[in-house]
Amino acid sequence: MSNIAAAIITIGDELLIGQTIDTNSAWIAKHLNELGIDVLRRVAVGDNREAIIKALDEEIARASIVLITGGLGPTADDITKPLLCDYFGGKMIVDQQVLDHVKAMMAKRNRPFLERNLKQAEVPDVCTVLFNKMGSAPGMWFEVPQSKTGGERKVVIAMPGVPFEMISIMQDEVLPRLRTQFFSDALLHRTLVTAGEGESVIAEKIMDLENALPAHIKLAYLPDAGMVRLRLTGRGKDSDLLTKELETHQLELAQRLGNIVVAHDDHSMEKIIGDLLLAKGKTIGLAESCTGGFIGHLITQISGSSTYFNGSIVSYSNEVKQNVLGVNKETIESYGAVSEQTVTEMAKGALRVLDVDYALAVSGVLGPAGGTDRVPVGTVWMAVADKDNVKTKEFRFFYGRLQNKEMAAKMGMMMVYKVISEKL
Amino acid sequence: MSNIAAAIITIGDELLIGQTIDTNSAWIAKHLNELGIDVLRRVAVGDNREAIIKALDEEIARASIVLITGGLGPTADDITKPLLCDYFGGKMIVDQQVLDHVKAMMAKRNRPFLERNLKQAEVPDVCTVLFNKMGSAPGMWFEVPQSKTGGERKVVIAMPGVPFEMISIMQDEVLPRLRTQFFSDALLHRTLVTAGEGESVIAEKIMDLENALPAHIKLAYLPDAGMVRLRLTGRGKDSDLLTKELETHQLELAQRLGNIVVAHDDHSMEKIIGDLLLAKGKTIGLAESCTGGFIGHLITQISGSSTYFNGSIVSYSNEVKQNVLGVNKETIESYGAVSEQTVTEMAKGALRVLDVDYALAVSGVLGPAGGTDRVPVGTVWMAVADKDNVKTKEFRFFYGRLQNKEMAAKMGMMMVYKVISEKL
Repeated sequence: MSNIAAAIITIGDELLIGQTIDTNSAWIAKHLNELGIDVLRRVAVGDNREAIIKALDEEIARASIVLITGGLGPTADDITKPLLCDYFGGKMIVDQQVLDHVKAMMAKRNRPFLERNLKQAEVPDVCTVLFNKMGSAPGMWFEVPQSKTGGERKVVIAMPGVPFEMISIMQDEVLPRLRTQFFSDALLHRTLVTAGEGESVIAEKIMDLENALPAHIKLAYLPDAGMVRLRLTGRGKDSDLLTKELETHQLELAQRLGNIVVAHDDHSMEKIIGDLLLAKGKTIGLAESCTGGFIGHLITQISGSSTYFNGSIVSYSNEVKQNVLGVNKETIESYGAVSEQTVTEMAKGALRVLDVDYALAVSGVLGPAGGTDRVPVGTVWMAVADKDNVKTKEFRFFYGRLQNKEMAAKMGMMMVYKVISEKL
Repeated sequence: MSNIAAAIITIGDELLIGQTIDTNSAWIAKHLNELGIDVLRRVAVGDNREAIIKALDEEIARASIVLITGGLGPTADDITKPLLCDYFGGKMIVDQQVLDHVKAMMAKRNRPFLERNLKQAEVPDVCTVLFNKMGSAPGMWFEVPQSKTGGERKVVIAMPGVPFEMISIMQDEVLPRLRTQFFSDALLHRTLVTAGEGESVIAEKIMDLENALPAHIKLAYLPDAGMVRLRLTGRGKDSDLLTKELETHQLELAQRLGNIVVAHDDHSMEKIIGDLLLAKGKTIGLAESCTGGFIGHLITQISGSSTYFNGSIVSYSNEVKQNVLGVNKETIESYGAVSEQTVTEMAKGALRVLDVDYALAVSGVLGPAGGTDRVPVGTVWMAVADKDNVKTKEFRFFYGRLQNKEMAAKMGMMMVYKVISEKL
């Protein structure tokens, strides 16, 4: 019942000085996981020969599949290709398919073919070349000599660090090979998304159910600003049976937790709201002051959101609140820009100007400057309007500027969810 | 000046199934780097006792400072706190300050104080507690017994994985301690920000100046989408003298590089543009389509941006482009929403509707869906308008949806900078 173990090594000095956020590892881990391959470790090392060799030795000892990203470029600090060639006792040869491809790429971009481009077509003669249709550096698949592994099959797979090149090679070359060449048990997940209760309260409520889970099913709590995801992970030979088991436990948890459950799939609140709107053919728009466009950014991260999201009036100045959204000058003068009255008029204005079924309006003081005795830093007023009603709420956040903005966005989405889900 | 070696261990199954992108490691690496601490490796492991202990053993052997994030929550899958207690041979005791803090947090949020919350106030008696003002799980600072390190001082620092809690503990507790306890010398930085030239061209131009730097002053190149930051780092006994030295070298570099220098402090492009606008009493506004509010979000990350930023019309639908920005229906029908003509009218509309001196308009197809033969995925048109002129440019990006959005935002800001800096 044990899964195949993998490790990911990312190579590049930029990862160790905080210049680059590693998104490759998460992508790789997610897709291996879906195949039923467990990533045991992710390791990042610099462009340093000894560090790379040490990492290879250690991770090959632990895992059957070692995936490497980065270090394959044409510049002097990219040392991984010759290093792997030495490591596996090969010699460098020119690969004709890669050479033709690199030449064609250069021609298409009107660039001269340089000595260093020839280097890109060189590969160790001890690897299977993984064609990179998106870029010039090919991926490489090495079999670790079984004399070194005690007879166990182990592979090392090296890919470039550019995300879309890595993804293309994984999809076309690596994942299909792993699927057919390595066997593993089924590994399945079921997620419940909850909103409005903290991790500890939830844990208290479902303690007996959690304790009664069989050994092959694990429960994880993944908390995030007002929401907690509960993820059930199961392993087993029979994936139909496992699916049924997981669904039974998921249903049990959902029934116990009642109306704090907002989704039965691992979706973001933006996606949950988008699906609700799509299902009902409704539209949404925003009137953002302190969030500055951040909520619009989150909503438009969902591909296809243009079907239900018309836009956002980012009314940072009072004049834009008045001139574009039609907020009364007197309202702002009497009650202030951060007030129940102002967000109510902003939401109604957005309904009209953006011609939508629902509108969320947000106005607040995120700090560090700009607070007053009456409206201290962290105060945020929100309103959700439809054609019949306006619902308003005051929030207070206690973090830095960016965190307050993120919290305001998440709480605003939560308010929208509540209004829409009651309505629909 | 030999640097101190650090390693980062991130703990959590969510990192190994690709559910979470690790942004903490990059933040930590960047800030350690500024102190003159080199991160040798970053390792991610699951919520698994043996894996965590193995990682601790290995990283302590290699590095003087081991930072751990994650695994400190109040639920069953967070096993790191008791594990560290065992590892360092301590026993758990209640910390009164943490207990009072957790109780106060619960009271403020009208939540009951549960048995589980008491657990959060328990800490190993062999650590220094690092107060977490942003959350309930405290950080912990352990000294590795010097009998195990051959007399060398080594520390292990554990923090929660929630990014703003980790950042708060790092800033308030960890970085100041590392600075005073691991360094006797002053460590100072001076940064020049350049735009419009690549790393290699810059390196060529300043090669002689770089080679002439004294041994206690280092130059680092930090490239990022169209910009390169040059960071001088100096270490020395006398901080006044060091400041003067760094300023001399900074000025020398700035004079050599001429007009590609856009800032003499380590500022973002948003801040640089904001400072320019403030200095001249000018205002800016946006008409965002594909970026969905993301550029407004970036601009409003600067506290005080309300002085020069009036707002953004996030015109995601064609109707909002027409009704709010006044783009002609015929323009969209003839040329498409992603065209030079449409962004030109969007920018002019934003100038008028938002009543600003400068307007940036952005319209594109970020993908993965929505591309056509004429307008493939990644195509983004931009326009920057003032009352006299409109400057337009077409871009093509090749990444995922979020990365394309970020690149579009950065390139748009760069275009704004060029127009404004020429004007002013």
